[in-house]
Amino acid sequence: MSNYAKVHTGDEPRTELHDKLGLTGAEVSINHVPAKGGVPFVHSHKENEEIYIILSGKGQAVIDGETVPLTAGDCMLIQPNAKRQLSASNDEGMSYICIQAKAGSLDEFTAEDAVIEQ
Amino acid sequence: MSNYAKVHTGDEPRTELHDKLGLTGAEVSINHVPAKGGVPFVHSHKENEEIYIILSGKGQAVIDGETVPLTAGDCMLIQPNAKRQLSASNDEGMSYICIQAKAGSLDEFTAEDAVIEQ
Repeated sequence: MSNYAKVHTGDEPRTELHDKLGLTGAEVSINHVPAKGGVPFVHSHKENEEIYIILSGKGQAVIDGETVPLTAGDCMLIQPNAKRQLSASNDEGMSYICIQAKAGSLDEFTAEDAVIEQ
Repeated sequence: MSNYAKVHTGDEPRTELHDKLGLTGAEVSINHVPAKGGVPFVHSHKENEEIYIILSGKGQAVIDGETVPLTAGDCMLIQPNAKRQLSASNDEGMSYICIQAKAGSLDEFTAEDAVIEQ
């Protein structure tokens, strides 16, 4: 079995990578939301923190009632229990990546988790 | 304490989000590599799977000796023990996101982990 998996994504409204790639440590989605569009409900999470990376455009997140403006280059962590709703702006869409990972699950990373090969 | 954290990133060669945002379930880096540039060593990981999302440009990954071409829109999972080395192409740089998450750590996600608020 190969030690990697690869898929190509385009401008689909939402691509979820967990099942496509066989992820076991995170779910990752790539989202392209048109102007005035957004997630149609407020939600929180049981276990997972969410990390948002805004790729282009602009919009906003409402987090526990606070409005947070979002623009390309913004990176945001939202704690599991926060009540959140994301939407694009009225005049411009927004593309973003959303990463779900279990809060507290990461032990080591980067240098500590790496093995440099000779 | 706020239930979220946000930072803005630009064209820095590498931005690591773990410490900036206080991540506990993943490490996420945003990387802009110039033409002919790349990670200067081959490495594997002890615990973490890596997920790569190519944002722009092109390059390649060498995984266990196999060369995998990469271009904007490609998404790739690399298993922890695979020996890997990424680089941009000779005539064009490559921007990508790298996510490290502990293999096997994700329990539920999306609908199963979400709580829809009234």
